[in-house]
Amino acid sequence: MKNIILVVKNDPRAVAAAEDLRQWLQQRGLEVHVDRPLAVWSRGPVQPPDFGPVDLIVVLGGDGTLLYAARTFGVTGVPLLGVNMGGLGFLTEVSLVNLRPALEQVLAGSYQAESRMTLSAEVIRDGEVITSHTVLNDAVINKGALARILDLTVKVDGADLTTYRADGLIISTPTGSTAYNLAAGGPIVHPTQELIILTPICPFTLSNRPLILPRVAVIEIAIDPQASDVLLTSDGQVSCPLSPEDRITVRRSRNQIVLIKNPYKSYFEILRTKLGWG
Amino acid sequence: MKNIILVVKNDPRAVAAAEDLRQWLQQRGLEVHVDRPLAVWSRGPVQPPDFGPVDLIVVLGGDGTLLYAARTFGVTGVPLLGVNMGGLGFLTEVSLVNLRPALEQVLAGSYQAESRMTLSAEVIRDGEVITSHTVLNDAVINKGALARILDLTVKVDGADLTTYRADGLIISTPTGSTAYNLAAGGPIVHPTQELIILTPICPFTLSNRPLILPRVAVIEIAIDPQASDVLLTSDGQVSCPLSPEDRITVRRSRNQIVLIKNPYKSYFEILRTKLGWG
Amino acid sequence: MKNIILVVKNDPRAVAAAEDLRQWLQQRGLEVHVDRPLAVWSRGPVQPPDFGPVDLIVVLGGDGTLLYAARTFGVTGVPLLGVNMGGLGFLTEVSLVNLRPALEQVLAGSYQAESRMTLSAEVIRDGEVITSHTVLNDAVINKGALARILDLTVKVDGADLTTYRADGLIISTPTGSTAYNLAAGGPIVHPTQELIILTPICPFTLSNRPLILPRVAVIEIAIDPQASDVLLTSDGQVSCPLSPEDRITVRRSRNQIVLIKNPYKSYFEILRTKLGWG
Amino acid sequence: MKNIILVVKNDPRAVAAAEDLRQWLQQRGLEVHVDRPLAVWSRGPVQPPDFGPVDLIVVLGGDGTLLYAARTFGVTGVPLLGVNMGGLGFLTEVSLVNLRPALEQVLAGSYQAESRMTLSAEVIRDGEVITSHTVLNDAVINKGALARILDLTVKVDGADLTTYRADGLIISTPTGSTAYNLAAGGPIVHPTQELIILTPICPFTLSNRPLILPRVAVIEIAIDPQASDVLLTSDGQVSCPLSPEDRITVRRSRNQIVLIKNPYKSYFEILRTKLGWG
Repeated sequence: MKNIILVVKNDPRAVAAAEDLRQWLQQRGLEVHVDRPLAVWSRGPVQPPDFGPVDLIVVLGGDGTLLYAARTFGVTGVPLLGVNMGGLGFLTEVSLVNLRPALEQVLAGSYQAESRMTLSAEVIRDGEVITSHTVLNDAVINKGALARILDLTVKVDGADLTTYRADGLIISTPTGSTAYNLAAGGPIVHPTQELIILTPICPFTLSNRPLILPRVAVIEIAIDPQASDVLLTSDGQVSCPLSPEDRITVRRSRNQIVLIKNPYKSYFEILRTKLGWG
Repeated sequence: MKNIILVVKNDPRAVAAAEDLRQWLQQRGLEVHVDRPLAVWSRGPVQPPDFGPVDLIVVLGGDGTLLYAARTFGVTGVPLLGVNMGGLGFLTEVSLVNLRPALEQVLAGSYQAESRMTLSAEVIRDGEVITSHTVLNDAVINKGALARILDLTVKVDGADLTTYRADGLIISTPTGSTAYNLAAGGPIVHPTQELIILTPICPFTLSNRPLILPRVAVIEIAIDPQASDVLLTSDGQVSCPLSPEDRITVRRSRNQIVLIKNPYKSYFEILRTKLGWG
Repeated sequence: MKNIILVVKNDPRAVAAAEDLRQWLQQRGLEVHVDRPLAVWSRGPVQPPDFGPVDLIVVLGGDGTLLYAARTFGVTGVPLLGVNMGGLGFLTEVSLVNLRPALEQVLAGSYQAESRMTLSAEVIRDGEVITSHTVLNDAVINKGALARILDLTVKVDGADLTTYRADGLIISTPTGSTAYNLAAGGPIVHPTQELIILTPICPFTLSNRPLILPRVAVIEIAIDPQASDVLLTSDGQVSCPLSPEDRITVRRSRNQIVLIKNPYKSYFEILRTKLGWG
Repeated sequence: MKNIILVVKNDPRAVAAAEDLRQWLQQRGLEVHVDRPLAVWSRGPVQPPDFGPVDLIVVLGGDGTLLYAARTFGVTGVPLLGVNMGGLGFLTEVSLVNLRPALEQVLAGSYQAESRMTLSAEVIRDGEVITSHTVLNDAVINKGALARILDLTVKVDGADLTTYRADGLIISTPTGSTAYNLAAGGPIVHPTQELIILTPICPFTLSNRPLILPRVAVIEIAIDPQASDVLLTSDGQVSCPLSPEDRITVRRSRNQIVLIKNPYKSYFEILRTKLGWG
């Protein structure tokens, strides 16, 4: 491991920790690049800096910063190490106090990595793909505050599923299951699974419950032609305003994200802590 | 009963039915005024026409048209008769085929009416009330499609309740309990009850469950100073964009809406039909 | 206040605290009676000891002990003071360390009391009332572990509501809303309210959502004639096995329970603590 | 295909249809055996008749009859054709009117089959397996009507998950996701998936949401030593009373059930019909 990117939340503590870390890594003869996304929930895709070949991505921030880093630098399969700034995250498992021992192990090549599936969401307008996002957590189609209820007609592998009347629809990976999906009533899915979760947001039809589809499913969504103020939002960070005639296609992406596991925290421990289980 | 307002949905069937009805009522020597709201979910409050003193309001449309009519003409206590155009509504219980016999009874003074509580929602900016809405269903504070999760700090009668992290918050009357509240996970409340339902929309904290407060409760909501793209929407029809420093106060209004009951349909029958029970 | 009953959980810490308290009260010249329910979830109604006229009931235990004390001694309107043994309860708001100062105030007549509605549940077999329970939390009709899904046909004030296909049905007071009702998906209801909550347990029909009825509602439940292994359970403590032809009637009881409020804890504080809000 | 078993619900219509079918099949020179389970929800495992080698199992009844047939005759991999008696089932997709054309195709070897995973549930007492069930839908640990809330301590692959305080716990296959799991708040899972769903029944901790585990997960459940009146129920039909010290282990079984698909009904059509979607 020679080339390392630090992705740093725009927060004084993270910036200070990154500066320390940069020096520590450079003293070990490593090449370090620092990226500081100003605001990860920007309205459009951001052109990432090109740091050349990379061996490791260290994220200092919260789950939001890691989602940015994964989308921006992680789709090539380079492993990510997520470091939280105090509050345990589902994706940023390592805390600052454990960072150096954890990094020593990683640099020595002794670590456990977990491959996570991602989704690719495309917007098709007039027969052309106008936007394509890769997401680690979720692609969400939802209405603006002003808009009335949305009609979303969904096909799976070309077959009719249903028309949801709802505030929106979440298409989530297992990794994203503990994010927006959970708040909207969806299940927790072990992050090593490969499948797609479809969770309507506040559906009008009360039996429209979350649905788990095979990882190979191709989900095609058409919006009610009379709708206005509708958006596709990817990982809660990148948005694309939708037109009534747009088709949105969501399917498994070929890109896998590689997360370095904290050897001291199991997934179930994180669940118990984050969800306040007993 | 001498002066009647017809409130008519902007839909060919409703318009045709209204024309028939107007003639039928005029042949009986009654004064008839017709109001046709172009779009009931307009972005701001509409200045209603002034038809002078009124004895009865007949609504031809759906629940949305009735909500408009209630807010626009019903707050004075004049009884409303809701007529649906095919699909049974929670508020428009009479169908077109039963309209004339139902109206004969109403004009003869033989009808049962039900008084429904309403809420008053006020937006306070820099110490001044800048907007005040009366709602029959609900006042909703929610975020736009682009916005991140909202922090809404709620006080009840001056005491701290909690800070909801959510997509938004529904403050609903019993009448509104079967509308947006139900889609967001709230309970069904018999419409004769007088109480206030607080239902967070997709709350981040899973134990933030719907809460029923006394009808005398005064609910004060403060928005996270960093929030943007937040709206107050009243009965799903009238909206007010909110600024981060705004305070929103919701309490019981003195206005009661008087609905004429369909003698042939009980509330439980409507529930069973609309919710597909058995 | 001259005559005091101590109701004490069968737990060493509660028993020790009760002995201390008994001496302390007797030194003040008060008459103290101690009742130690061996197991509050006994299978049938227990014949309570007759301690003569009472001015105050102090409960040392948890919410379960208070439910027993309320049903056994509280229906006459004598005020209850609930003292928890460590974990805050919804009903036992005072902790052991605050007990003496709280009692000083109560004995001096300086306290705030809250009246809580109760429900009366009757089982009618062959036209006769065979059992009658008063509950502060809830009356629950549910099936045994072996039984299949239950069909419960419910009438409200003589009118058909629906037939629930479910594991059971909870009929809860506002006080009981944070107990079993909450676990089954029902709303939180401010305990000063007077209304009845009907919450089906795991209903087969997904739109069978919790329903709030007026406090004057009379709820009549008939069990599927083919059912077996069905019970009525009151406040989770007293049970009555039901026969297929039984009718169960639940309505507001005339008995109100008087709870002494902890001046240092508001209801919203208890909610936040018990439900882990923020 | 030479040897056929008919499994017939104990219901006059099913019995009459089976008699017709038996004659029709015998006229084609086929060997037909008829099994009529008297009551599929019997309290213990039933010793099935031994009909020798079998090529096809035709079930006339509902989903309950098919669950019995799958457990009794289907674990060897012989294909099952489910025929409903009027109401569409999730497992009995073919209706009586389409039975003969459907069977002609099956006998001609022209059919589509779907392999469904099953679970094996074992009860271990004093170190010995005292009961072992194979289930197509679910294994459920739940409390009797009299019992108080259950404490169920769950390990997954030897690691602590959590202790559920609940009415019980459902361990479901994808096939079982639309049965009890759905009523208890679990997600719908496409039946071709291979995974295990853990859904607590009315959990006390509101954040104890349904959890999806890998198909290779080994789930070990320990019951609170003070519990009484606890049962393991398999597919809602076979029960085993549990003792406080018992360990229950649930894992994927090697047996797959082979269901013959109705070529005229897709899974999504069945979902829409059974759940009343749009």
